[in-house]
Amino acid sequence: MPELRKDPISRRWVIIATERAARPTDFPHEEVAPNDVERCPFCEGREGETPPEIFAFRAAGTARNTPGWRVRVVPNKYPALRIEGGTERTHVGIFARMDGVGAHEVIVETTEHHTHLGLLPTDHVADVIRAYLQRYRDLKNDPRFAYALLFRNHGRTAGASLSHPHSQLIALPVVPNRAAHELEAAERYFGRQGRCIYCAMLEQEMTSRQRVVWENEHFIALAPYAARFPFETWILPKVHEADFGAVAAELEVPLARALGETLSRLHTCLKNPPYNFMIHTIPYREEARHVYHWHLEIIPRLTQVAGFEWGSGFYINTVVPEDAARFLREVTRGVEAIRAR
Amino acid sequence: MPELRKDPISRRWVIIATERAARPTDFPHEEVAPNDVERCPFCEGREGETPPEIFAFRAAGTARNTPGWRVRVVPNKYPALRIEGGTERTHVGIFARMDGVGAHEVIVETTEHHTHLGLLPTDHVADVIRAYLQRYRDLKNDPRFAYALLFRNHGRTAGASLSHPHSQLIALPVVPNRAAHELEAAERYFGRQGRCIYCAMLEQEMTSRQRVVWENEHFIALAPYAARFPFETWILPKVHEADFGAVAAELEVPLARALGETLSRLHTCLKNPPYNFMIHTIPYREEARHVYHWHLEIIPRLTQVAGFEWGSGFYINTVVPEDAARFLREVTRGVEAIRAR
Repeated sequence: MPELRKDPISRRWVIIATERAARPTDFPHEEVAPNDVERCPFCEGREGETPPEIFAFRAAGTARNTPGWRVRVVPNKYPALRIEGGTERTHVGIFARMDGVGAHEVIVETTEHHTHLGLLPTDHVADVIRAYLQRYRDLKNDPRFAYALLFRNHGRTAGASLSHPHSQLIALPVVPNRAAHELEAAERYFGRQGRCIYCAMLEQEMTSRQRVVWENEHFIALAPYAARFPFETWILPKVHEADFGAVAAELEVPLARALGETLSRLHTCLKNPPYNFMIHTIPYREEARHVYHWHLEIIPRLTQVAGFEWGSGFYINTVVPEDAARFLREVTRGVEAIRAR
Repeated sequence: MPELRKDPISRRWVIIATERAARPTDFPHEEVAPNDVERCPFCEGREGETPPEIFAFRAAGTARNTPGWRVRVVPNKYPALRIEGGTERTHVGIFARMDGVGAHEVIVETTEHHTHLGLLPTDHVADVIRAYLQRYRDLKNDPRFAYALLFRNHGRTAGASLSHPHSQLIALPVVPNRAAHELEAAERYFGRQGRCIYCAMLEQEMTSRQRVVWENEHFIALAPYAARFPFETWILPKVHEADFGAVAAELEVPLARALGETLSRLHTCLKNPPYNFMIHTIPYREEARHVYHWHLEIIPRLTQVAGFEWGSGFYINTVVPEDAARFLREVTRGVEAIRAR
């Protein structure tokens, strides 16, 4: 019998198709293939092909926009939003509009074209996290920005047009729907129960352990109870914190370990699948609403989103989250070989 | 300068990338190719390969589950939900679940494998609409169902695993998020302005005409102001009606004409692109909340939904809706040739 499960935060329902439950090998295998190495603007030595560097971790004595960097942040050459402009809203009858003001940056994660975040050593992933934090905090100083989204597209199917390892950051002049809805839901629960809904969920997950993928002292990776997608995995800080920008220096390495470990396991279990990940955090001017709990959501792109999902907001997931967590817990051999690099 | 536009109903924002605005020919061409004709279970003469027929328009004197039909409805052989079961919710700590009870039917639109809804004559499309209405109304008699979604996936990229022309209907024991949110938004607007938000929008669109694609006396096809996707097109009844199930007999042909015409234009303009369409209507037990306005949303699948969209609920649309409407208004030659079939 299929099962309907409700996500307590978004209140969306998913259909968990327990009868035709799939295994990792049941998905059409679409390994992410590197492209464009000949003309890749993110490779070392081609620094002149991107807009000028905003920030980088680089070897002492090397100049901006030259080789010698480990992690490098540049403006997106084809930005979705522009940095110049105001935030006034105007109305056209029933409709509202504003200038497309915002920031659109690219975090190039490594000089190496043929790798990805799940294969890099932890200290390197920690530098990527530090670059995320540096840019996230810096853009907050621009009073026009209400929210910043850090995200990563891996593979063409997941929307990546360049395969060189990179993440992106888009700062927006309005709080997006998804962030607003999650914040409202967290506030509603806090008002009723006097505690954070994510903390309540974590407590239950850490007791049941059925959906836990991996954990260390500070972070936990788990398959959400009402996962929308096969092998969807969330990483959450164990101690309540609304704001990604407030991650303490001593948590950078544990977070890098949790992220690298989870992506490695997905890489091994699903043979380098396309995926997206997104950091969900409190909006920039809302830190006082401490009811939120920042986290990172990883969605492997193994199945198509079709008319049913677009029309309803329901999802059909053919992998039971408890099974997905177990598969990811058990893929240790390959992961250890990778992590030993 | 890119522009941010807000959809007045969902309150989601979209980025309209006016600077790099695309033309129909700018998208990687992925024409939908028919597959599987050798073993297609929806072709005439293979009626035994589907579960037994629920409903059909067929020639007088022909028996169920034999040739002689024009439109045929069968249960989905691999249903997402099962018809047997109750609707009690149970709780597992913070989480809610229920049995996956529901209906999942397939409306086979024609015996002909190598065509699609945008290429069929209007009287045939009207039979498809009548089959939608028959099934939609019939499933309402099951008191367990709270909502039914009619949708169509065209092409592999849009989630169709079989290319033989077909639509689907899924009846659900709960009202899905998207329907609930749109109904709430319509109610909020009605409470404030004393009228339907869709009617207000239609009035504005019919005056400005910038985003109108096509219309007849009863229906209008338009590019929504805050379209999420390039060439997204909605079809709405001009006269207020909350419930798709209440479409009057004399509106079946005008609706078929509007749907066929719009799909033909998309077919010609974008060279048979993959797409989804979904009928948005009032939930089954909510007809008293007459503030809603049923409509059909068509989303061509020309671009990938990636981390930014999943993380924010924002969309980036590279085709200005006014341009999309104009391109679709102007593709008449090809359409007329098709419609003359």
